[in-house]
Amino acid sequence: MTILGVDSNPQHAEQALERGIADEILSLEAAVISADVVVLATPVNAILQQLPVVLELLRPNAALMDFGSTKEQLCAVVATHPKREQYVATHPIAGTEYSGPEAAFATLLDGKTMIICEREKSAPAALEQVEQLCRLLEMPLRYMPAAEHDLHFAYVSHLSHISSFALGLTVLDKENNEKNIFDMAGSGFSSTVRLAKSSPQMWGPIFSQNRKNVSEALAGYIEQLQQFKAAIDAQDEELTKELMAKANDIRRILG
Amino acid sequence: MTILGVDSNPQHAEQALERGIADEILSLEAAVISADVVVLATPVNAILQQLPVVLELLRPNAALMDFGSTKEQLCAVVATHPKREQYVATHPIAGTEYSGPEAAFATLLDGKTMIICEREKSAPAALEQVEQLCRLLEMPLRYMPAAEHDLHFAYVSHLSHISSFALGLTVLDKENNEKNIFDMAGSGFSSTVRLAKSSPQMWGPIFSQNRKNVSEALAGYIEQLQQFKAAIDAQDEELTKELMAKANDIRRILG
Repeated sequence: MTILGVDSNPQHAEQALERGIADEILSLEAAVISADVVVLATPVNAILQQLPVVLELLRPNAALMDFGSTKEQLCAVVATHPKREQYVATHPIAGTEYSGPEAAFATLLDGKTMIICEREKSAPAALEQVEQLCRLLEMPLRYMPAAEHDLHFAYVSHLSHISSFALGLTVLDKENNEKNIFDMAGSGFSSTVRLAKSSPQMWGPIFSQNRKNVSEALAGYIEQLQQFKAAIDAQDEELTKELMAKANDIRRILG
Repeated sequence: MTILGVDSNPQHAEQALERGIADEILSLEAAVISADVVVLATPVNAILQQLPVVLELLRPNAALMDFGSTKEQLCAVVATHPKREQYVATHPIAGTEYSGPEAAFATLLDGKTMIICEREKSAPAALEQVEQLCRLLEMPLRYMPAAEHDLHFAYVSHLSHISSFALGLTVLDKENNEKNIFDMAGSGFSSTVRLAKSSPQMWGPIFSQNRKNVSEALAGYIEQLQQFKAAIDAQDEELTKELMAKANDIRRILG
């Protein structure tokens, strides 16, 4: 198997070669016209532009997948594309707060869930190619409509990122002496604020494409926080404890 | 060295013996009157009640410390106590979302920062006993006024817990099919929601004792979230990216 890499950033392209992530670096067109499977792993605004172009270039028996964190707009942009069935809309539930080839590690996808959307719009052969790749990585597969995907991920992923970014901003605003944060931050702060290190270029377009769901999730989150604040302001410790006990239910799910 | 344990919960007392956390279980009074160093590691509402009682029982050359996450009210309750100087107000920046003897592990405190408040109100001998213990555990020491401690920790710890509890509630409210959360939650969600597993009995009293600061921190946090929501609703992707880029500054501090 040969891995053909494409990167708009020449430095990243070189790093990908050095780290053995790609065997060769080519132009988008040159890579796509000789590929059996194409994976688009760019910010979702770039995927939106690349999908129709890459589909157009794709060889007859090749499959196209993407690693975007949104699915509804991506599926929509190729909905009537004559080669739509060569596309398999995928989202691997894997990643870290870091980006670029320096952030890559070989076991990133191992055992992680792969979501496949609009499976019925993909050709069986294209689907089989993608599923086989996933089986090799021992990735459990889940199928769902694109709209459902975007709604769920607004809650279980996109909201987490905004909660983290906003937490980082709140603490940075208050603590102008950064040494204080460094000395006093425990593992709790680090884990809740970790995602605030994530790339704005990657996340801005995700929030834009999933605007309605993310806005709804944020509204719900703000309401929960206001409920906590009201209980604390009213010195209603029983209510804050009740809210926390309800939130403890997450233990049953996350172990 | 002999470790005398005291626990209001007989099952926890037994677990502490079984796990070698304590050599002997005694009543509070019996333990305190024969101890050289007493550590109160109970919820902060219990510490508030125990501090004056335990100080009263304390032997002349013994030192008393506590592991409470608040310091202002605890220092205040013994401010005029005749044996105040045997108390050293401490807060180790260590812990997990789990509680009780089953959650204990030997390296919890190793290398973690120990905050000491109102150092000037402790007798040099008591202070020295506590500092020596910390040196044995290679815990870096930081000294600060109790009011400053409570303000900082509202931001770098207490707020993180509320952000997590509220995130758990928001997602549980929306996703009544828990299998969905389980299958789709990535490491980002897990790390932002981890603290939602924390004990309501421990955290309720912390928020109550640090009410003013926690409320201020929460107000600031809600404002940042509203700013994000407004930018997303207005489709102002440049602004959401700007906010995220500012939040990225946390990288410089947390690495």
